Amino acid sequence: MLLHILWVIGITAEGVTGALAAGRMRMDLFGVSTIACMTAIGGGTLRDVILGHYPLVWVASPQYLLVIVGAALITVLLADFLMKHFRVVFLVADAIGLSAFSIIGARVAMEMGHGVIIAIVGAVLTGAFGGVLRDLMCDRVPLVFQKELYASIAVVAATLYYVLDMVGLHENINIICAVLSALFIRLAALWRGWSLPVFDYQGRD
Amino acid sequence: MLLHILWVIGITAEGVTGALAAGRMRMDLFGVSTIACMTAIGGGTLRDVILGHYPLVWVASPQYLLVIVGAALITVLLADFLMKHFRVVFLVADAIGLSAFSIIGARVAMEMGHGVIIAIVGAVLTGAFGGVLRDLMCDRVPLVFQKELYASIAVVAATLYYVLDMVGLHENINIICAVLSALFIRLAALWRGWSLPVFDYQGRD
Amino acid sequence: MLLHILWVIGITAEGVTGALAAGRMRMDLFGVSTIACMTAIGGGTLRDVILGHYPLVWVASPQYLLVIVGAALITVLLADFLMKHFRVVFLVADAIGLSAFSIIGARVAMEMGHGVIIAIVGAVLTGAFGGVLRDLMCDRVPLVFQKELYASIAVVAATLYYVLDMVGLHENINIICAVLSALFIRLAALWRGWSLPVFDYQGRD
Repeated sequence: MLLHILWVIGITAEGVTGALAAGRMRMDLFGVSTIACMTAIGGGTLRDVILGHYPLVWVASPQYLLVIVGAALITVLLADFLMKHFRVVFLVADAIGLSAFSIIGARVAMEMGHGVIIAIVGAVLTGAFGGVLRDLMCDRVPLVFQKELYASIAVVAATLYYVLDMVGLHENINIICAVLSALFIRLAALWRGWSLPVFDYQGRD
Repeated sequence: MLLHILWVIGITAEGVTGALAAGRMRMDLFGVSTIACMTAIGGGTLRDVILGHYPLVWVASPQYLLVIVGAALITVLLADFLMKHFRVVFLVADAIGLSAFSIIGARVAMEMGHGVIIAIVGAVLTGAFGGVLRDLMCDRVPLVFQKELYASIAVVAATLYYVLDMVGLHENINIICAVLSALFIRLAALWRGWSLPVFDYQGRD
Repeated sequence: MLLHILWVIGITAEGVTGALAAGRMRMDLFGVSTIACMTAIGGGTLRDVILGHYPLVWVASPQYLLVIVGAALITVLLADFLMKHFRVVFLVADAIGLSAFSIIGARVAMEMGHGVIIAIVGAVLTGAFGGVLRDLMCDRVPLVFQKELYASIAVVAATLYYVLDMVGLHENINIICAVLSALFIRLAALWRGWSLPVFDYQGRD
């Protein structure tokens, strides 16, 4: 239930970042709505297709598409205002989304009987690959592969959730611990500019 | 049956546009054939994978791949001649394809028990995402997100088909009405240069 | 068993080419690991999702992801050294991978009851589409559509394997013949610079 509320915050925030990215490429309203949906639910879609986990959440409950398209259209109308006054709110909402998406992705994999590696893959796909699809559609190298601590947080969140689940505390305690840890690390990473080492290879191949 | 004939016209026309796009990027014959197939059947493939609708049409009936590759190779041989003398034919065939693909996509979703939103998603995936894959492979922002009234026509066609289906007329009448309406709007949009409003955002995010 | 060993050589070599491509785009360690995995197992993933062949190999046996990530991280540490002294080894290992992936892809399709066309599609997806995903993520037109004889070798290998299988020799003989033929053609193509005809179209569309 808690995770579901965080998930709705997450898809809304991801829809906004998708709409802004579409606006940078001067897309029309169809493009804006589509990129918003792909950013918000594309990662979970990839996860479910790869794991064979049917039906997909948004196919079974398509009303969430309307939430995302609504967020995208409000972004079109109010982008400058929102980004001027509520920028920090969106950064926090996006971090909440990343944390919730990661735990949800790990849970789906674990409920299907998979171990820690596929739980991490589920978390990374759900948390980070919506943004990868968004960047592909906008013809740029996915940000998540180059900058900031973002997908790594999905790895940490999934590992922590997996360990807590093995320890056997109450489900809600596990979720709260894992989400808060992921949220804290993400916000600290944003604030301090943490990032992973970069591999720069310009030789022959 | 009617829809099947329109579908074959559609995959042939889409195969030609895929081959031309590949030719612009100076691809080899393998690239041309592959882009042609992805343009023609990539949208339906995405729809079936997302909805869990197996087996895919072209996997069950692979002879259609030969039709598409044949259209692509003829395009390689005769591109200048065809585009000089038959350009309008291809625009109409492409519009027929868009209309037929959209109704087919909506039907597949409805036959699986989904409502109007997923019927629209099925139509948009089938009608427009072959072109999205083509443009991704050619390293450009998908045209369908930026210009012309194209994917929107899939939305209109699916909605109309869904409403007609609820009204309960004969299936063939529904198909003919929805296909003709979509075809008419598409050709009018091409002729009059209709397009959706564009979202142009260059602020910070 | 033989095919499995060749497959492991293949995913290792593909992981290295993925890591090098990521290094050219100055990706971080997460990006390098992800591109390496997508290059090594992305083609087989596409094949299994399109054919509905669940569970995916690497989902059932996730330890192979560790092999690929290990190969990627060693590449990060030793790229210049490896490419200076072992470049030919990697070209051969990549050719082994292409050959083994192609036969495996054809076999999966044939075991599911498909004919020669889908066997060829399975071979091309498995052999060449890991590299397509790698190039998409690095924001460039996939090399396999433009240069060298690469995917065509998957077509030849799958056709040969299909014919040998119909003739009814021992399975291992079929595999060895098809893999060696594919390997020989690939290395000859590299050595002699063979390529397919290119379609160059710059007219209107």
